Amino acid sequence: MLDHVEPIAAQPIEPFSTEHESFKSTKPETLGRFVGKHFIYTYENGWHYETYIRSAYSADFRIHSGLLTGRWVTDTKVHLVRITDDICKMSWCEPTGTCVSLLFNLGNRRMHGTIFFPQWIAKNPKEAIVHENEHDAEMQAFRNAGPTYPTMVIDEFADISFMEDCGTENNKVIACSSTELPKGYASRKN
Amino acid sequence: MLDHVEPIAAQPIEPFSTEHESFKSTKPETLGRFVGKHFIYTYENGWHYETYIRSAYSADFRIHSGLLTGRWVTDTKVHLVRITDDICKMSWCEPTGTCVSLLFNLGNRRMHGTIFFPQWIAKNPKEAIVHENEHDAEMQAFRNAGPTYPTMVIDEFADISFMEDCGTENNKVIACSSTELPKGYASRKN
Repeated sequence: MLDHVEPIAAQPIEPFSTEHESFKSTKPETLGRFVGKHFIYTYENGWHYETYIRSAYSADFRIHSGLLTGRWVTDTKVHLVRITDDICKMSWCEPTGTCVSLLFNLGNRRMHGTIFFPQWIAKNPKEAIVHENEHDAEMQAFRNAGPTYPTMVIDEFADISFMEDCGTENNKVIACSSTELPKGYASRKN
Repeated sequence: MLDHVEPIAAQPIEPFSTEHESFKSTKPETLGRFVGKHFIYTYENGWHYETYIRSAYSADFRIHSGLLTGRWVTDTKVHLVRITDDICKMSWCEPTGTCVSLLFNLGNRRMHGTIFFPQWIAKNPKEAIVHENEHDAEMQAFRNAGPTYPTMVIDEFADISFMEDCGTENNKVIACSSTELPKGYASRKN
């Protein structure tokens, strides 16, 4: 029954692109309350993360603790949509193969994240602890080398401990790894 | 720089399992309004879908039109969480490798779906048009054969045209392919 399934073939490494994705569901005119927001939050599994919504189509991330402490990503393309006046949903797929879908609720300062990690990150997370933008081809090489499955599914709520407006396309919000930040940066509350 | 990346190796096909996933974020006591709900909805890209929330931890799906018309899945394990009184989020990863994160808003009868399809489904969707439960090993074989990348990201809003309560663990809600249903079944509105 399965003998017509071909074995895995090596995949060529091309520049990472979202050109084939439709971004029609993103309506910038509905996202005014969300664009520019900068969040620091801690998942209930203890992972400490930071996100900056740079524009209606892009975001920055930095990881303070968890499986990937030290990883950061700037100006990555995301799908951002308004769910209610308080809630936005942001989804994207990374050069690592990781797929992510986050909800931020500005009203009660809670968020919920679902992260689908390929198995290679579960087995060897240190390879993904980089400023991803400088390592796109390397991340895609790890992605293609796999193993991809079983997918590691993380589904967690978080409390937003710090929230501010930083305007759009602000390169100063997330500009280094969490390991290079002044002490106390990520533990601020407001 | 990339020469330490090993080529892809064939992955063994084991029974599909979510045993390694934590379901701690699911709080059944918060999900009373969502469990038992049966939805028919049409994405803005025209894809016509149906979902039944069977329990706090499982759901059924049927596809009426779109890339995978005729595909259906019953009693599949999902991560279901309450976001507000009106909104729940449901996420899961399939034996096909497809990862999904859906929001249902009972208040305004809108939903939003993000679907991360592996490339093999984009290239050859007909292989996934089955009652998945009877083809787990075959789906995993296609999944492992790939290609997995580039991921096809679908990010779409939908209107919920039909919504009802069907109770829990009801095997009569989704019990056949969309191609076997009486005419008019999926076009009902309420």
